[in-house]
Formats: sequence, structure tokens, C-alpha cells
Amino acid sequence: MNQRKRYTVQEMNEYVTNKLEERGVRLTDIAVIVYMLEQPYTPDIKVKDCIEHVKGVLEKREVLHAVLTGIALDEFAEKELLPEPLQSLVETDDELFGIDEILPLSIINMYGCSGLTTFGNLVKEKVGVIMKLDSMGEGKTNTFLKDLIAGIAAVTASKLAHIRKDMEEQAI
Amino acid sequence: MNQRKRYTVQEMNEYVTNKLEERGVRLTDIAVIVYMLEQPYTPDIKVKDCIEHVKGVLEKREVLHAVLTGIALDEFAEKELLPEPLQSLVETDDELFGIDEILPLSIINMYGCSGLTTFGNLVKEKVGVIMKLDSMGEGKTNTFLKDLIAGIAAVTASKLAHIRKDMEEQAI
Amino acid sequence: MNQRKRYTVQEMNEYVTNKLEERGVRLTDIAVIVYMLEQPYTPDIKVKDCIEHVKGVLEKREVLHAVLTGIALDEFAEKELLPEPLQSLVETDDELFGIDEILPLSIINMYGCSGLTTFGNLVKEKVGVIMKLDSMGEGKTNTFLKDLIAGIAAVTASKLAHIRKDMEEQAI
Amino acid sequence: MNQRKRYTVQEMNEYVTNKLEERGVRLTDIAVIVYMLEQPYTPDIKVKDCIEHVKGVLEKREVLHAVLTGIALDEFAEKELLPEPLQSLVETDDELFGIDEILPLSIINMYGCSGLTTFGNLVKEKVGVIMKLDSMGEGKTNTFLKDLIAGIAAVTASKLAHIRKDMEEQAI
Repeated sequence: MNQRKRYTVQEMNEYVTNKLEERGVRLTDIAVIVYMLEQPYTPDIKVKDCIEHVKGVLEKREVLHAVLTGIALDEFAEKELLPEPLQSLVETDDELFGIDEILPLSIINMYGCSGLTTFGNLVKEKVGVIMKLDSMGEGKTNTFLKDLIAGIAAVTASKLAHIRKDMEEQAI
Repeated sequence: MNQRKRYTVQEMNEYVTNKLEERGVRLTDIAVIVYMLEQPYTPDIKVKDCIEHVKGVLEKREVLHAVLTGIALDEFAEKELLPEPLQSLVETDDELFGIDEILPLSIINMYGCSGLTTFGNLVKEKVGVIMKLDSMGEGKTNTFLKDLIAGIAAVTASKLAHIRKDMEEQAI
Repeated sequence: MNQRKRYTVQEMNEYVTNKLEERGVRLTDIAVIVYMLEQPYTPDIKVKDCIEHVKGVLEKREVLHAVLTGIALDEFAEKELLPEPLQSLVETDDELFGIDEILPLSIINMYGCSGLTTFGNLVKEKVGVIMKLDSMGEGKTNTFLKDLIAGIAAVTASKLAHIRKDMEEQAI
Repeated sequence: MNQRKRYTVQEMNEYVTNKLEERGVRLTDIAVIVYMLEQPYTPDIKVKDCIEHVKGVLEKREVLHAVLTGIALDEFAEKELLPEPLQSLVETDDELFGIDEILPLSIINMYGCSGLTTFGNLVKEKVGVIMKLDSMGEGKTNTFLKDLIAGIAAVTASKLAHIRKDMEEQAI
């Protein structure tokens, strides 16, 4: 174990960003969901602003830990390496298997409780890239990743809501 | 304090059921939401079956405790009896005030994690009586109650999903 | 409703800080718990550093919202103004009444999941001012406040752990 | 995928019970923790009663799903099969890695909120078999399992508290 190194936030961030890209999720895809959530409140917000905030969220240790764990489970399932009965549960995203919905609980309250309901709504409505991840078909497993993307988008939107409110207060 | 009594589940249930009715929520209203959630999986389910399951959920101590707390806060707000700044936060259901969304966390995982995302979705989509509670206009405050109703409906639907799955397994 | 104002974070912070003091909780009391939690990892940390971090946590909207709600419920219970059966549940801190333990869930994950177990431990072990709040005797109700103080201390300790880890990484 | 079968609760229960035994956790070990938690309230409770209740909890789908996921992650870590940086995080049970503490969140509120603080306390105090799992030394990884055992014990104790309260009410 002595040869193990401790990874910095920056190293984890590089690994996760690459993995997301490799699995079909660009930062822009997440930012578009965030834009859709915040634009009604901030009409002139730009998608590229949202990208910056998604990047910021992807520099948080908890977010990185959750994504690392979820993608590892998805990829084991794709390679059929999970022990049964877990393999079947993850591969088919069994209706009553809720561990994929629990993982994002570690991050959705980072910027307040509003993340919780936004997360639930995004998972159910399968907006944008979440729908794409959900329907990739045989051989692809995104059981954990799609819920994590919903969580990252929800938490970034919560962060933007806080920033907006702070600016309103300063303008008083 | 010695004259205080301890209330049984049945006494709390009677109080809560009456209060719900008084504030415009009939068990049928909640059951209709549950019906809408479960009917796609159990085509021949009846609303009156859903009413029975809603009743069952309203016999759980945690559910009763959460509803008792939430309705008390709503009614203090209606009477303008909450101390400021809490009065304004609850009365206007401030966008970043999330305590109303946290209270149902005590119950939504009672029958598994699927309750979490269903809850989030119901809060955001404001289905049926939740919309009615949300738009009662001046003088009425349902900040906590509407999220609690979403929680009760979500948890009842989770329970039905478990029962369905149990029956499928026994049929194997 | 038009005469209601929206309160800034600073105004809520002043209200909460005064209320805490009035109810027997000084920032130092919370800081001492944080010190106890972090000192094993940062031997030369000072209580006055911890005070600064507690202050920072008490500038977060979610924390303020949770404390405002909890103290309001405690004070209504003290004045015997809660409707029964809620009055008895809060006043006696009924063993199965868990709403006081749910409120801090809105804040304990703000700096990562380690807050969750630290919170649970502080509630059970009743360290320092938490014990004092728990044993104030007849006429005083701190059912919500003592769990909120445990939450604030836990989340401040999580924040310190993150700062420490960041500094270690930068030193590499 | 067509050859995949759906596993019943009973099949998952058998797998999990065997796995627990194989990894050094007997049902009695968990029951002893439950006994320790409940005995102060029910002086004449027997460890063998607690075993029956632990068995009951291990028949819940959510509990089985959480344990299946956690043990799979622990065993991948033992075989050094997790991708870095996840391998290092799980293997060393990194202080700020909290996914192991989040998994049990899917189960600890099953019988009410009292599970939450009991869980946190058990994780921190490392009672009984939890301490054993935590100190198995090189080559063994129980990062997830030890927190899951704390969760199972906490939730079983919550269930017993509810049963006790129900009996008290019926005796009125």
C-alpha cells in the first residue's frame, strides 16, 4: 500500500472530466440543463456562464467521489463484472433499486435544499443528456451516471440561485 | 408538565385527518396522485385501493409527526404569529427557504429510495391538490403542507411498488 | 403582504446570533466543540480560529433558515402555544419524535458527508453546550436547538477538514 | 441480457447472509449491537430476539441492495480492481471520502429518524463487530461494510423502539 499516492482534487477532476467525455457527457450538456433551470430567473444568462459554474462544481471533492464511484459501478456492469444479483440490478436499472438515486444525496444539499426537488424532477423528466444516457441501448450502462448528472445539474442551479440572491441583496 | 398525556398513534391520526380535511385536503385527493403514479404499472388498480394505502401511511408515527409540525408552522404563518424573519420566509415560500422540503425527508425513504425522486417530481410539477394548495391566494399558507402531501403521495406509491413486486415474486 | 420586507443574510445573522446568546449559546460554546473535533488533526489550532469558522457557517442562508425554524418551535413549546399533540411531543422531546433530528439534515452535508456521522455522534454524546441545553430543566425547551447546535458544530468541523486537506495538497 | 433472471428477495437474502458470514459478520454480531441499544429500554430483551429482528431487516429489498453494492465495492478494492483514484480512496477509507456513509442513508430512515443519529454514533464509536471490521489490517477492506453494519443495527434498533411504543400504547 505504501506505493499508493493520494490524489489531489485537480487530478481527480482531470480523471472525471475525461471519463465524462469518454462516456458521452460534455460539460456543455450539463450546462444546458443548468441554463434551462436558471434562465427563467436570470433572462440574460449565457450557457457559457453555466459551463463555468459546472466546472466549479466538478472541483468539489464530494462531487468527484460520487462520480468516481458511480462510473466505476456502471463500467463494471457494462463488462458484466459485478457479482450477481447486483449485476442484474444495475444492468437493468431495476425499478426498486435505489442506490443510484442515493449516491447523489451526498452532493445535492451542497448549496441548499432546493437541490433536492430539482434533482428528483430531473431524474423523472430525463431532460437533455440524461435522456440520452438513459436510452443508449444494449451494452451501455448509465444507471448511476444519469442520476449523477441530474445531481450535478441540480446543485449547480442551486449555486446560481444563491449567487443571484446575494447580488439582489447587495443591490438593496 | 405532569398533566400532559402521551398521545397514541390513533389519536394523532384522528387529529391529522381532521386537520387535512379542514385545510382542504381529502384522502381521495392524495389517493388520486398515488393512482396516477401506480396505474401505469397496475392497470386495474382502483382509487379506493389507493385511499386504503394512504390511510395506512397516515398511521405511521413519523408521517404524523411531520404533518403535525408542518401544519402548525403553516397556521402560525397564516395568523402572522411567527417571529420575523421566519414569518416572511414561510408566508412567501421564499425560493431559497428549503425547510419545507426537508421535513418530508423524514418519511420519503420509508419504503425505499424511489420515494425521493417521486417526491421531487411532485413538488416541482404540482400535481392535483398540490397545485390547489399552492395557489390558494392571500391569507392562506400551505408552504409546508403542499410538500408534505407530495411526500405522503410519493411514499404511498413506493409502498405500492413494493407490494406489486412482492406479488410478482410469489407468482414465479 | 406588500409591507413585508425581504431580509438579507446579514439581518438574519444578527437575529440568530442574538437569539443564540439569549438562549444560552455563545459562539465560543460551539467553537469549543469544533476545536475538540479538529484538534487531533491540527494540533496547534486555536479556539478563536474555530470561532471565526463558526461565524462563517452562521452566514449561510440554509443554516440561518434551519435555526430560525427550530428556535421558533422551541419557543412556542416553552410558551405552551403549540397545538396538541405537537406541544407534548416537542416539550418532552419524545423518543420517537425525530423532526428535530431532520431539520439539521438541511445543513450537515454542506461540506461533505463526514458531517452526517459527526452530527449523529454529537447528538448522542451530548458534548459541552449540547448537554447544557438538554438539561435546562422545567420551563425550558431546547429540543430543536440542541440538535441544530450539533449540526452547526459538525458542519464547521467538516469545513475545517476540507481546508486542512486543501492545504496539504498545496504543500505537495 | 435475456438470460438474466430477476432475483427474489429470498435469493438476495441468502446471498447476503452468506457473504456477511464469509466476511466475518454473523447475525449474532449485529444482534449484540442492537441488544446494547435497546436493553436500557427493555431490560428483559434477549439477544436471540434481536437476531430475529436483524433477520427481518435483512429481508428488506433496500437493505439487501445497499449491502450488495457495498460489499461488491469492498471486494473490488481488496482485489485492487477499482480504477484509480477510487481504489486508493476506498482502500484507505480516506477521511473525506463519504460515499460509504451515504449508502446507509438509503436504509436508516426506514423506521423513523432516530436511525440517523444512532447510525452516526455507531460509526464514530465503532462498537463490537464494527471495530473488528475496521481493524482487520492489510489485505482486507471493509470501508463500506462497516458503515452498512452500523446502518443495519441502527435501523433494527429503531424498529424495536417502535414495537415497544406500540405495545405501551396498547397497554393503556
